[in-house]
Amino acid sequence: MKRVQIMAVGSELLTPYYQDTNSLFLTQRLNDLGLNVSVKTVAPDDHDGLFLQVKIALAQADLIFVTGGLGPTEDDRTREVFAEVLGKKLILQDDLLIRIQERFARRGMNMPISNKKQAFIPEGAEILINDFGTAAGLWLNTGQNIVVLMPGPPHEMKPMFENQVWPRLQQFRTGYRTGRVLKITGLTESMVEDLVQDLYPKEQALQVTTLAYPGQIEIHLTSYSTQSAEQADESLKQLALAFLERLKENVFSAAGEDLETVIGRMLAKRRETVAVAESCTGGLIGHRLTNVPGSSEYFLEGAITYSNESKIDNLGVPADHIRKFGAVSVQVAKSMAAGIRTRARASYGLAVTGIAGPTGGTEGKPVGLVYTALAWDKSVEAVKNQFLGNREQVKFQASQKALDMLRRLLLQPNADSD
Amino acid sequence: MKRVQIMAVGSELLTPYYQDTNSLFLTQRLNDLGLNVSVKTVAPDDHDGLFLQVKIALAQADLIFVTGGLGPTEDDRTREVFAEVLGKKLILQDDLLIRIQERFARRGMNMPISNKKQAFIPEGAEILINDFGTAAGLWLNTGQNIVVLMPGPPHEMKPMFENQVWPRLQQFRTGYRTGRVLKITGLTESMVEDLVQDLYPKEQALQVTTLAYPGQIEIHLTSYSTQSAEQADESLKQLALAFLERLKENVFSAAGEDLETVIGRMLAKRRETVAVAESCTGGLIGHRLTNVPGSSEYFLEGAITYSNESKIDNLGVPADHIRKFGAVSVQVAKSMAAGIRTRARASYGLAVTGIAGPTGGTEGKPVGLVYTALAWDKSVEAVKNQFLGNREQVKFQASQKALDMLRRLLLQPNADSD
Repeated sequence: MKRVQIMAVGSELLTPYYQDTNSLFLTQRLNDLGLNVSVKTVAPDDHDGLFLQVKIALAQADLIFVTGGLGPTEDDRTREVFAEVLGKKLILQDDLLIRIQERFARRGMNMPISNKKQAFIPEGAEILINDFGTAAGLWLNTGQNIVVLMPGPPHEMKPMFENQVWPRLQQFRTGYRTGRVLKITGLTESMVEDLVQDLYPKEQALQVTTLAYPGQIEIHLTSYSTQSAEQADESLKQLALAFLERLKENVFSAAGEDLETVIGRMLAKRRETVAVAESCTGGLIGHRLTNVPGSSEYFLEGAITYSNESKIDNLGVPADHIRKFGAVSVQVAKSMAAGIRTRARASYGLAVTGIAGPTGGTEGKPVGLVYTALAWDKSVEAVKNQFLGNREQVKFQASQKALDMLRRLLLQPNADSD
Repeated sequence: MKRVQIMAVGSELLTPYYQDTNSLFLTQRLNDLGLNVSVKTVAPDDHDGLFLQVKIALAQADLIFVTGGLGPTEDDRTREVFAEVLGKKLILQDDLLIRIQERFARRGMNMPISNKKQAFIPEGAEILINDFGTAAGLWLNTGQNIVVLMPGPPHEMKPMFENQVWPRLQQFRTGYRTGRVLKITGLTESMVEDLVQDLYPKEQALQVTTLAYPGQIEIHLTSYSTQSAEQADESLKQLALAFLERLKENVFSAAGEDLETVIGRMLAKRRETVAVAESCTGGLIGHRLTNVPGSSEYFLEGAITYSNESKIDNLGVPADHIRKFGAVSVQVAKSMAAGIRTRARASYGLAVTGIAGPTGGTEGKPVGLVYTALAWDKSVEAVKNQFLGNREQVKFQASQKALDMLRRLLLQPNADSD
């Protein structure tokens, strides 16, 4: 098995402010080839510090993927240091220099003199064209290692990787990996565990990773085949089917989509509409629904009714309901949902009222108590929820629950309002 | 200068799904002592892979901070591998074992047998008590290096670092570092550059890092003194003052706060209220304002008026304004702001109408065109904006601009509605 290292170069990545994220993308794509990452490093851009890290990398890894340090400034010395450690000369590549000059010319600019250094290439290296910047990448076969140098900006690195590194990496393919993400809401992590525990595959070729967030659980399924992509796909399909059979309608997406995207598609297909009345979520449900391009097709309006007056004036919540039961109550949640549905002439009305915290809780109505309600042509239903977490987590879980009530209704064959 | 390494242990950190974030916290705190981080690594938890990384770390760094791999499972072998590489025996610490057993006993449980391994400590190591878990940390002086092993979960690692590692690190202090974050909106990155360019300090003891996001620019100011914290504070104060004098009211926080937090405090202090009417932001302004604890004091309500009908029905936008000028127009933005202010009986009304994209743009009204408006007792003002970026970036910039219009009005001495 090849030892694979990913190295991010840049002293800014050794401050508290920046984090390398290129390595997540690279890891995903290397995994797709059946390659695992053995070690990740972040190296500084001062000469001595970088020199040491390059030496260590060349000694420990077979395949080395480096991002950053290919720019025109003095601090960009990835090319130079690799050449130095490997004892290779840097040679001016005329065609590359012309390419860089042309790039500036197309914008009506002369190439600054500092960019000339980007056309110096260690002898024997293959150039990886950069379609989105002046920093060319390099593919270097040292005899002992394959070193791939790529620029740091993700919008330059990713296309370079896909178009020019990926084809060259096929020779190191050990197999075919494919994956799928199931997204789940309405169950706790331990409920999910109980349902699928015995499905955890024993074969190394199938992997299951569960990530749990408040209000959402993701199950990442991965399948690996030494034979073919088709075989990997087929095993993945079987695995996914087994999980779906157990988790049923609790899986809101088997393709890694957001809940708002899934609901948007369902509503658009049925040519139905929704309106929302939000108290403690404060606009988050509207924000999420309208994050989906094209949502104006089915999202009509929202009312963020934080004050009691606004609940009474805008949604027709009976004042004596608020007096008798409080603003955080099943009665008020139902009136809000029915009120916004009527006002907006929408197919569905969603409502939330609760206590997001950290203050405002009482013994009878603690922080995290949230009523979510859904109104449609046949009925109004409300659910009492007790969420854990900080203010933002309570808000997210409340929005998730309200959206999920709508999704589950839309799944029912008789949910149509006609 | 000591060479400092941060190492995160865990094979999950070498997948596409998880990222080490502990190192950002550790970097910040080490910087506070005047120590810079020379290299960061992520090591796997298999024996051979971890062994190699530990060997390299001990050879290359003076201070080594390790997180993860101290748990009770078979995959947790950070303690064991460091002991092995250093040729040190693991010795059962009775008092630590009792501590772990008591932790379980307090929850009415017996300690699982697997946890016993957490009480075995390499000879000569000092124990770092974990108040929030069973994994003790270790402080190991090898003669050549200082090795600090800490648990991976941030809520265990951070208090351990602060309470037990921080005091021990004072001996390596090379100085005193302190920092401040200025947050700016309403200027582009190059406008900020032009204003402060000549203020960039020449001394190495003062550092300026600028992070630019759509709608927000952060300037991180850092000051370092070899003498005292007071001296670092004083230099920082001078530097911050110089920046503030240039950037003036474009700085909405000199303490790293969010815009919604700043506005909330201003409104609460004046005992004034706000209501919002959102079209293309879809609830984001309400969501942001209500992310602030206690916002019910000043946030009354919001109207998410996505459809034309809802703008007419709920905000009293004249139908012929929409016909004549279109929903995305200065006239409609102003009617929306005035309408929500009146309806909610609020001191201020904020409104947004625009085209978030990616579809819906025309030649005359392209994607990113957004009108933001503010109504108060004396007037209604609207601004035409052309934002760049994807749908979420346009939404954020629009929310930021609307909130900033309110902030700038509140800064004026005569802005009071009384």
